[in-house]
Amino acid sequence: MTDRAGTETEGKATEGGLTGWEAACADRTRQTPFLALHGPRLLANVQDMAARVASRGGRSTPHLKSHKCLEVARAQRAAGATRATVATVAEAEVALAAGFESVLVAYPPLPGEHTRALADLAGRCHVTVTCCRPEHIAALAATGAPFDVYWEVDSGTRRLGTPPGPQTAQAVAAAPFDARVRLRGLMTFAGHAYGATGEAALAAVRDQQDRALEETRRALAERGLAAPVLSVGVTPLARLDTDLADEYRYGNYVFYDATQVALGGPDSSACSLAVISTVVDVPAADRLVLDAGSKSLPAERMTELTLGFGLVAGRPGLVIEKLYEEHGLVRSAGPHGLKPGDRVAVIPNHACTTVNLFSRYVVYDGESFTDTWPIRARRR
Amino acid sequence: MTDRAGTETEGKATEGGLTGWEAACADRTRQTPFLALHGPRLLANVQDMAARVASRGGRSTPHLKSHKCLEVARAQRAAGATRATVATVAEAEVALAAGFESVLVAYPPLPGEHTRALADLAGRCHVTVTCCRPEHIAALAATGAPFDVYWEVDSGTRRLGTPPGPQTAQAVAAAPFDARVRLRGLMTFAGHAYGATGEAALAAVRDQQDRALEETRRALAERGLAAPVLSVGVTPLARLDTDLADEYRYGNYVFYDATQVALGGPDSSACSLAVISTVVDVPAADRLVLDAGSKSLPAERMTELTLGFGLVAGRPGLVIEKLYEEHGLVRSAGPHGLKPGDRVAVIPNHACTTVNLFSRYVVYDGESFTDTWPIRARRR
Repeated sequence: MTDRAGTETEGKATEGGLTGWEAACADRTRQTPFLALHGPRLLANVQDMAARVASRGGRSTPHLKSHKCLEVARAQRAAGATRATVATVAEAEVALAAGFESVLVAYPPLPGEHTRALADLAGRCHVTVTCCRPEHIAALAATGAPFDVYWEVDSGTRRLGTPPGPQTAQAVAAAPFDARVRLRGLMTFAGHAYGATGEAALAAVRDQQDRALEETRRALAERGLAAPVLSVGVTPLARLDTDLADEYRYGNYVFYDATQVALGGPDSSACSLAVISTVVDVPAADRLVLDAGSKSLPAERMTELTLGFGLVAGRPGLVIEKLYEEHGLVRSAGPHGLKPGDRVAVIPNHACTTVNLFSRYVVYDGESFTDTWPIRARRR
Repeated sequence: MTDRAGTETEGKATEGGLTGWEAACADRTRQTPFLALHGPRLLANVQDMAARVASRGGRSTPHLKSHKCLEVARAQRAAGATRATVATVAEAEVALAAGFESVLVAYPPLPGEHTRALADLAGRCHVTVTCCRPEHIAALAATGAPFDVYWEVDSGTRRLGTPPGPQTAQAVAAAPFDARVRLRGLMTFAGHAYGATGEAALAAVRDQQDRALEETRRALAERGLAAPVLSVGVTPLARLDTDLADEYRYGNYVFYDATQVALGGPDSSACSLAVISTVVDVPAADRLVLDAGSKSLPAERMTELTLGFGLVAGRPGLVIEKLYEEHGLVRSAGPHGLKPGDRVAVIPNHACTTVNLFSRYVVYDGESFTDTWPIRARRR
């Protein structure tokens, strides 16, 4: 089982606004837990982000890892996206099936089967790969396939990428680019935005991200190297004004989740994904047990600002304190009126890893369930 | 992403003995990450537990939720199990497919579809259901199907179950048992064993578990009620001597994992499950990046005794500090000799939820990969 770690912080996570799942909870025709997708909210999120990016003069290259779903990818294309970001070759297949003809694989080429799969992909669509070592360029070149490359700069997350400025320029200059494998841009992932706990901290991450790209472009120019595209993408920064980048790779925004709400992002009424769960038992006035555990809700707390392992929609007094595989243990601050057999909607802490636990979405229009959409490209 | 929470505790998790995965890491024919199952270790674990339970005069009713796999269930039957424990109806299907004719559903009946599915199951095999409310008995009786019932007693986990002794006896007496829905036993789940951090603490949980069952059986007897079977099962307690129970529902023992090792259980050389992962990058001497993130390794720390999000086999100096979806960020205490493209085997913190992230096991005999076994009964 998994305990809630860290201290308790009263934050936005406990506010109201969690409505719109009432009919999903009232419909008892399916066994719980299942994954409900609020179609109108999803579409609104897709269109809102497309407009936001367009207003900056940028291109939206949405990250499909969040949803792994043909139908959502098609909605993103309908909103104007012409290229998709993916983390895996299996996700690239979803992009192709949805009609995308250009894919950004935001993962460096690994030796062997992975690089061969990238070459196969490059025979079927336009492929851009993020790289951060001269050896990556050599590996791509050795396949004989054509690739565009974004060089990855580490703007502070300390995950992948070379340091901004001259060090990146030196690594790029040492890489065996050729007529087929071409440097096209600089990319960065400011994942440390998830560690920010206020608007000022978020703005500081944004500034750090932008500075990293600017410094590196300048250092490249000093060596006569050009990287026309600047690519960024981490959902908590999406609402901050910036127009430096050419490309925005947001993923989570199609759903949002308890983490995005806690970080001061959208109101929970924008969250389009919920795990519908049954109250198994009410062992005491201040406790209840749900049938959603760590096989339905990932046991992640990405920020100290979330109180538990998800938001119980419309019930701010409930905190999911602990997860066993098929049980969520909930503490209640006061009377909640729930009894065994009642259903609740849980907005997960992390939408992307929640999707990865299910095989399909049950699509919901706010009043009834209308469709099911398969979740593809899960781990084999 | 998910940070490692809590303080650092030097424990058994950092010791050696992590061998036997060398050939699995040397074989580069599959894309990583994938789930490798060490067949000889699995069989040894299955046979060892069967012998251990038999030596106590008990019956092994292994929990299939840990593996969700026909082939593993068959190995448990071959070792003498005649009944399987499951958490879900989908897992019961795995039990039936493996040839079990008796199933313990260790989850109370929920209104509607779930109870109807239990009744359908009872038409196909012998079904025992764990219950903890008179309403559960009424719901089972209303289906008209035959059910045996284990009444669940809360021995300290505060998850499900009624308090030991007279309170349980009172609830049982109030339940509408009849000729078809019969009380057959008492069950408890001492999940708080995972919170124990030493042998004395584990023994205390075992004693508490046994006392809860004994007191409750006595209280039932005082009302003229009999519950012939006493059923227990939580893997950390499996190695403690006890012969009170009639039935043992252990699950995790087929694999073991970094949590069981950290709790002082088996040596890591008994662990039969590993995520084979590629080193993506070595950005600094004290850091490396794996391609196993929170979509391959559940971001769970079930005990403070584990240092990170899994053990890197044979490399005690490495700590997986943080998980993004497709990246594991590793800190190295000293020189590790790994370079991009190398592969490592990661013993996960929680085997059961790791299995739930994959679609198949790649079976490994210690020298090469010999088969693939499907993982069934995942969330739809």
